[in-house]
Amino acid sequence: MTDKSNEQDTKGLTVTKAGDMPEWYTQVCLKAELADYAPIKGCMVIRPLGYALWQAIQDQLNAYIQEDGVTNAYFPLFIPESFFSREAEHAEGFKPEVAWVDNKDDKNGERFAIRPTSETIMYDSYGKWIRSWRDLPLKINQWCNIVRWEVQDVKLFLRSREFLWQEGHCVYETADECHKETLHYLERYRQIAEELLAIPVIMGLKSEREKFAGAIRTYTIESLMPDGKALQMGTSHDLSQGFAKAFDISFQDKDGKSSMPWQNSWGMSTRMIGAIVLTHGDDKGLVLPPRAAPNKVAVVPIIFEKQKTEIIKAAEEVGTLLKEFTPIVDTRDEYTSGWKFNEYELKGIPLRIEVGPKDMEKKQAVVVRRDTGTKEFVPLTKLKQHVAETLEQMHTELYDKAKQRIAADTVEVTDFAGFEKAIEDRKMVHTTHCGDDDCELVIKEKTAATTRCIPFKSGDVKGKKCVHCDKAAQHAIYFARAY
Amino acid sequence: MTDKSNEQDTKGLTVTKAGDMPEWYTQVCLKAELADYAPIKGCMVIRPLGYALWQAIQDQLNAYIQEDGVTNAYFPLFIPESFFSREAEHAEGFKPEVAWVDNKDDKNGERFAIRPTSETIMYDSYGKWIRSWRDLPLKINQWCNIVRWEVQDVKLFLRSREFLWQEGHCVYETADECHKETLHYLERYRQIAEELLAIPVIMGLKSEREKFAGAIRTYTIESLMPDGKALQMGTSHDLSQGFAKAFDISFQDKDGKSSMPWQNSWGMSTRMIGAIVLTHGDDKGLVLPPRAAPNKVAVVPIIFEKQKTEIIKAAEEVGTLLKEFTPIVDTRDEYTSGWKFNEYELKGIPLRIEVGPKDMEKKQAVVVRRDTGTKEFVPLTKLKQHVAETLEQMHTELYDKAKQRIAADTVEVTDFAGFEKAIEDRKMVHTTHCGDDDCELVIKEKTAATTRCIPFKSGDVKGKKCVHCDKAAQHAIYFARAY
Repeated sequence: MTDKSNEQDTKGLTVTKAGDMPEWYTQVCLKAELADYAPIKGCMVIRPLGYALWQAIQDQLNAYIQEDGVTNAYFPLFIPESFFSREAEHAEGFKPEVAWVDNKDDKNGERFAIRPTSETIMYDSYGKWIRSWRDLPLKINQWCNIVRWEVQDVKLFLRSREFLWQEGHCVYETADECHKETLHYLERYRQIAEELLAIPVIMGLKSEREKFAGAIRTYTIESLMPDGKALQMGTSHDLSQGFAKAFDISFQDKDGKSSMPWQNSWGMSTRMIGAIVLTHGDDKGLVLPPRAAPNKVAVVPIIFEKQKTEIIKAAEEVGTLLKEFTPIVDTRDEYTSGWKFNEYELKGIPLRIEVGPKDMEKKQAVVVRRDTGTKEFVPLTKLKQHVAETLEQMHTELYDKAKQRIAADTVEVTDFAGFEKAIEDRKMVHTTHCGDDDCELVIKEKTAATTRCIPFKSGDVKGKKCVHCDKAAQHAIYFARAY
Repeated sequence: MTDKSNEQDTKGLTVTKAGDMPEWYTQVCLKAELADYAPIKGCMVIRPLGYALWQAIQDQLNAYIQEDGVTNAYFPLFIPESFFSREAEHAEGFKPEVAWVDNKDDKNGERFAIRPTSETIMYDSYGKWIRSWRDLPLKINQWCNIVRWEVQDVKLFLRSREFLWQEGHCVYETADECHKETLHYLERYRQIAEELLAIPVIMGLKSEREKFAGAIRTYTIESLMPDGKALQMGTSHDLSQGFAKAFDISFQDKDGKSSMPWQNSWGMSTRMIGAIVLTHGDDKGLVLPPRAAPNKVAVVPIIFEKQKTEIIKAAEEVGTLLKEFTPIVDTRDEYTSGWKFNEYELKGIPLRIEVGPKDMEKKQAVVVRRDTGTKEFVPLTKLKQHVAETLEQMHTELYDKAKQRIAADTVEVTDFAGFEKAIEDRKMVHTTHCGDDDCELVIKEKTAATTRCIPFKSGDVKGKKCVHCDKAAQHAIYFARAY
């Protein structure tokens, strides 16, 4: 058993982000207490700081979807085996990922899957609930845990057997409305990534090979991490009528005729937290995007024995003044100021505010930005406004910095030699492709790069050729190795 | 396929609450769209209205526990079999309830339980995290799904294989602090039940027979439903040091010595929603306690073809005026006003506000209370204040009404003949008991009544005898049949 006050040296990171990013990532997750390994293979524990970030994401998405008329609900963890086989592509796609529970009460009974996604169990109920055009649109979201058994080695937040997510499942009268809203929920994900988490993303369409099993079109937001790997941050699927057919969902339309509705589904997971760490973190640890940080400020009194009571009181007053930023006011005696500085840097608190004897005298506080280390002496009368502005500025600068990095790490290539070199150099590639499934597979086998998305803002490809097979290009597309 | 507008007769309840309460209960849950049966034995679907009530409970408890310094986190769904056996009583208590998943990757590997409660998986991590007195108290809560496999027949919200709950798990330096907080979280549950849901409860201690497997003391809030069955609404367990021993949790105290900490755990589930239905519902359907109702008001324009546009506009203005009460403003053309009245009565919306041509003329609205049917004509200038006051009044009156019913359904008995008759008459019994485990079991076998709790406000039992065995009474206690 160790006295924690002596642990401060071992608490810091032992590698740099540039030097060994996988090890750096794991150390940040563990030492900033975002997550921990679980005693179950492939599983993780989400610790309070990690969960608080998830809650910030939940709160924001809940606010958005409430505006959009989506309500939350909860469907069973268990799915009968027969449900999976009803939609053939879906069944095939999820087959290797499912954990099964035997149905012990009923020897002849079918097995239950532990949900790897909930289309089938939800649409069985939808088939019962939807009768008339008056019941449409039906827009339901679920926050829940998901199990995908094929994962062996956990990568905290990014890959684990169990994770948390939300899945929205909507049903519409028309294909147009369905498609429009499929894109709308993708836009909500862009807002979460960019406006809440300061993570720039590319919006686009998944290739046929990479789309969701059971969808006709999958839209995605993709970001590029500093190690050159792409991360899919959220997807929205246009399911067309495949599941409606499989689960016998129909409605009486306004003319009294029986019609089949159109569906979409869309999901986003605790992966987002991994993207925060990778995108913004540095050699001192985590850097939290200010809008999502549960505590935006840490107030640290610089305690000298002589004026101890007064300084602690001054720090508490600063805490009260800044209460809208949910400050941590750390007046603990058993840790030094230096230890506290390290701790809040490791944990990524956006602003540190120091209050010492001189500051007290001058009626000011010292404001230190986590990302840049910039130190400013701010009069108490202006502190609240200064903090609000600095947090917003920090959001913008984190976003811009990541945007510039992604631009610098994205390479335009037209020939396959260039393609291979760029992927080897850990870049994301923007190029043109024939759209052929087999060609895409060969590229994956040669380079381990997959198609990320056909961007919405795609230029004209007329006259251009596929980067790999020389056939005519069908679209511009991003390739990268991916998480 | 049926046109919904013709369904209104079949949508209403076909039995009365007094006439057939079990059937009435199921019909309310289904027809008010709180929940539905799932295609999996023993499981249920929580529909948006049911989930919104759960969210109201979540929001309130999250606000309370944030004040109390408890943070949310998430631990794995799967628990290694060996963890269960570490705390003997706990293992024995949960044995019949566990669903197991085979560990297919590892032929010699142990099975995984799907969590029936998370003490063991959480305390394994606690053992790693807690080193020094500086790490205490550690106060973590988890919102999650729970599986208890022994359930065969689902009773919506009240009994199902899978349900949602929260479980708080705290660790303290001293027994005193632990015990004090065990009672504090019970008080939080009382606040949720009484102050949010208007459901009166009795607070007390569970008997040895009824306590949580692994606790030294279980505290409970109990309510009595109108069918004479008691419902346990939340429990808080003083775990003492049993789990700390089993999971090797220790800390260096302020004197530098290794010490063993003290623990509690406390939980509350989606059962609460069943209690709302049973306590407040009536022959027209659900009655929602105003503070928890997601929509506190439904505004229904009384549409006449001539003034249609104006009336709809007036209804929308009333909606805007009352927006803090998250009103439903139902301007749909395809349903009659009568259909809408029935719908919002069935769904328990606390206040219905009608706006018709005459009201428009008089600059007033009609306010109808769901529970009493009281109808008031209120000038628009006073409407907002009137609604706020009426909702609070409704909360108080719902609570008082339930309190009086429970008092009337609780019988003081001193002899066993009286006891048996009272239980047969579907009453809760307040009596004295010897405290003997076997005596309690015999009473259960004879009457199907179990001990509910030894109330905190218990009178003196000196000189009194046990209601059953004539031994000296140890305490006053409540007995009832229970959910």
